[in-house]
Amino acid sequence: MESLLLAVPMITALVCRELSGLSFLWIALGCAFIGFLLTVKKPKNRTFYAREGFVTVAIGWILMSIVGALPFVISGEIPNFVDALFEMISGFTTTGASILTDVDALSRCMIMWRSFSHWVGGMGVLVFMLAILPMVGGGQNIHLLRAESPGPIVSKIVPKMRDSAALLYIIYIVMTVVEILLLVVTKMPLFDAITLSFGTAGTGGFTVRSSGMADYTAVHHTIITIFMILFGVNFNIYFLMIARKPKEILKNEEVRWYFIIIVAAILGITLSIHSAGFEYSWLEAFRHAAFQVASIITTTGYATVDFNLWPLFSQAVLVFLMFIGACAGSTGGGMKVSRFVVSAKAVKKEFYRLLHPRNVRVIKLDGKKIDNETVRNINVYFFAYSLVFVTSFLLLSLDKLNFAETFTSVTTAINNIGPALGSVGPYSNFSALSPLSKCVMMFDMLAGRLEIFPMLLLLVPATWKRQ
Amino acid sequence: MESLLLAVPMITALVCRELSGLSFLWIALGCAFIGFLLTVKKPKNRTFYAREGFVTVAIGWILMSIVGALPFVISGEIPNFVDALFEMISGFTTTGASILTDVDALSRCMIMWRSFSHWVGGMGVLVFMLAILPMVGGGQNIHLLRAESPGPIVSKIVPKMRDSAALLYIIYIVMTVVEILLLVVTKMPLFDAITLSFGTAGTGGFTVRSSGMADYTAVHHTIITIFMILFGVNFNIYFLMIARKPKEILKNEEVRWYFIIIVAAILGITLSIHSAGFEYSWLEAFRHAAFQVASIITTTGYATVDFNLWPLFSQAVLVFLMFIGACAGSTGGGMKVSRFVVSAKAVKKEFYRLLHPRNVRVIKLDGKKIDNETVRNINVYFFAYSLVFVTSFLLLSLDKLNFAETFTSVTTAINNIGPALGSVGPYSNFSALSPLSKCVMMFDMLAGRLEIFPMLLLLVPATWKRQ
Repeated sequence: MESLLLAVPMITALVCRELSGLSFLWIALGCAFIGFLLTVKKPKNRTFYAREGFVTVAIGWILMSIVGALPFVISGEIPNFVDALFEMISGFTTTGASILTDVDALSRCMIMWRSFSHWVGGMGVLVFMLAILPMVGGGQNIHLLRAESPGPIVSKIVPKMRDSAALLYIIYIVMTVVEILLLVVTKMPLFDAITLSFGTAGTGGFTVRSSGMADYTAVHHTIITIFMILFGVNFNIYFLMIARKPKEILKNEEVRWYFIIIVAAILGITLSIHSAGFEYSWLEAFRHAAFQVASIITTTGYATVDFNLWPLFSQAVLVFLMFIGACAGSTGGGMKVSRFVVSAKAVKKEFYRLLHPRNVRVIKLDGKKIDNETVRNINVYFFAYSLVFVTSFLLLSLDKLNFAETFTSVTTAINNIGPALGSVGPYSNFSALSPLSKCVMMFDMLAGRLEIFPMLLLLVPATWKRQ
Repeated sequence: MESLLLAVPMITALVCRELSGLSFLWIALGCAFIGFLLTVKKPKNRTFYAREGFVTVAIGWILMSIVGALPFVISGEIPNFVDALFEMISGFTTTGASILTDVDALSRCMIMWRSFSHWVGGMGVLVFMLAILPMVGGGQNIHLLRAESPGPIVSKIVPKMRDSAALLYIIYIVMTVVEILLLVVTKMPLFDAITLSFGTAGTGGFTVRSSGMADYTAVHHTIITIFMILFGVNFNIYFLMIARKPKEILKNEEVRWYFIIIVAAILGITLSIHSAGFEYSWLEAFRHAAFQVASIITTTGYATVDFNLWPLFSQAVLVFLMFIGACAGSTGGGMKVSRFVVSAKAVKKEFYRLLHPRNVRVIKLDGKKIDNETVRNINVYFFAYSLVFVTSFLLLSLDKLNFAETFTSVTTAINNIGPALGSVGPYSNFSALSPLSKCVMMFDMLAGRLEIFPMLLLLVPATWKRQ
């Protein structure tokens, strides 16, 4: 699978006539060879349960990242393996946090591979496998899908999961192509248009120039803003659009709240930065606020300005958005809007119960009853998330960052965003961190992308016991 | 009730011959008069439900604090009413965050009133009322007790609630007296011994000298460390000791984890500060670590050193302890150890379910099954808590503090601790904050002490509708 994916940077190397493209060829060949050997022996027992699904996904992502990091190392462009792995995990998990001090020093095929990893990781590698590989067992692949797809509820758009996955990928490809075309039409160089669109689509956020987003025009910024927001929407919405079911779109509470939060955050930040003595016109303030809000809530992580210089209120809003994240079923990270909507409803229900002790109310989302199982899962998720967060915070506090930097580094890693605050802000990088801190952040990025449980399960001894 | 409580500073004023004690007399008389008028009209319907219980407690605490703040204002010792109210809410909620830049400038009776408010607030004013007033209705005072007593489960030590409350107060008084005696025997001035013991018993943390804890000896620090830890223990344990039931004490998981966390935190911080280039001997490092850990986990807030100067790891441990808080059923604040124990068990149960899909496990605490209702309440509590936290953080970020200061100010207020980090650390105060920030922190202190719901309920319009 990964050998095939490596064709993209190889083609880039051919087009740009870069010798470093050879490193992709060696890894792709080695990868294909080992992969072939592994598929020779067919497993006897082809069914698997939640445990196997979660562990497969977690190990799959780790292996993919290790293999993906090798071309950087053997080409010498990122000689340190820990750094290369950090970059690759950051790529596949669509985080976009980088250890590179100078992106321009990389060859084009390497930049392409980084950005392409966002695109691959955004929709999920295994969803892609489900779309093209023959189905195994009786619908038990739901465990694979559940482990990899974001959000509290796994909904199948169409009855057959394989068709669902294929449909998701078609929507994904079409939207990415449209963004590339729009950027090219507005005179962005093709290479930048493709790589930035990959970053937008996967809600990744690797920049492709050392100057960040500064070389592009306000029109480019606006196009990217709109597409970031679109890729943060639950993809079911696009399916409903194709199926012409506008009523069901309007019923979707998560998407409604997603847009309410975006509008509120943009307004708050526009007011905050316009009144803070920057020389922004109202329109500029709005444009920068919109770009940054879209970038952070969708967990993309691009930045048109250094929001470290903004008033603390604006930063606080952005940090808050980091935790909320995008919609479930999108390519975005974070905790997902729907988890917050359901939890807020649980609090509301509790108030109702206090005020009307004799009446019983059920929690509904999109007009459908949410069962206790789902609410319980969300709560367990929040707690497991906090556990990972606190442990990471304590480990990262051994490094030389300050309180805000440490806190937002963990936040940005576990929510798959990219930039943090202070010395690890949008105009800096994570190269100065200790190897321990980098490893903690890698774990957090994977934990965030796979929604905590698959990665935690790897650490539980009972997982490895034969049953 | 409050008129009676005001007798304590009045007696102090008499003993110390301070004229400012008159302000307590006026307020006590006015208070008694209005209180008498209010009790003349007997209510027709004496039963009340959760709503009435929660609202009564919330309004009760606000009124008590307003009345308690008046002596500061009319004596001119804290002329600004917002500041006086902040100080008093901080007192009754056992927070110990102060707006005073110079404690020594206060007269003794005022210092006594501040510290005494910790002692009163620690055990809860209404628990006290339950202990001495004739019971109203058929056991429905559980709603009052539930709203005021800390922790997820309200357990009645002895069948009759009135006896429970009386017993709690006896244990509380005896322990306070023992601490005062020990401090006096080790040559602390009587006034300091009494006021600091009030602060320890209520887990409050107002210092009584501008020099903080610096004037006292290492022996005093050690005595206070031990008593802080003791007052953070669930008081049921002391009842079980009196009843000679050692087996049940050992079964108590919350207390076990409370001590495990304390030991781990002390060891971690001792290592961290000893290796950080301070000139601490191992014993000094241990003593300071123990004092600070005991002070923070019990949410007292005394400090023998400025932990702002400690390595970030030590600070991170302390911030983590701020959220955990003490045991349920103690005088301490925070989220309470038992909530974390139950939540950790819920996560463990989820892992078990993933690994053994066919087996069902129940969550047990102290060998007893925890019902879904309790788990659900804990989850709703966490979410409501986060809601208050985030809103407060956003409002406080409008002030001129930095990220770490804003974050820890909210943390310290909502968990009823006292000192934060940076410019609002243990060797500073909150006087420089804007009135808005002070109001937000007052709300947080009350919300934290009453465990979120009573204060949030005041903001819900439906609460005020006639049913």
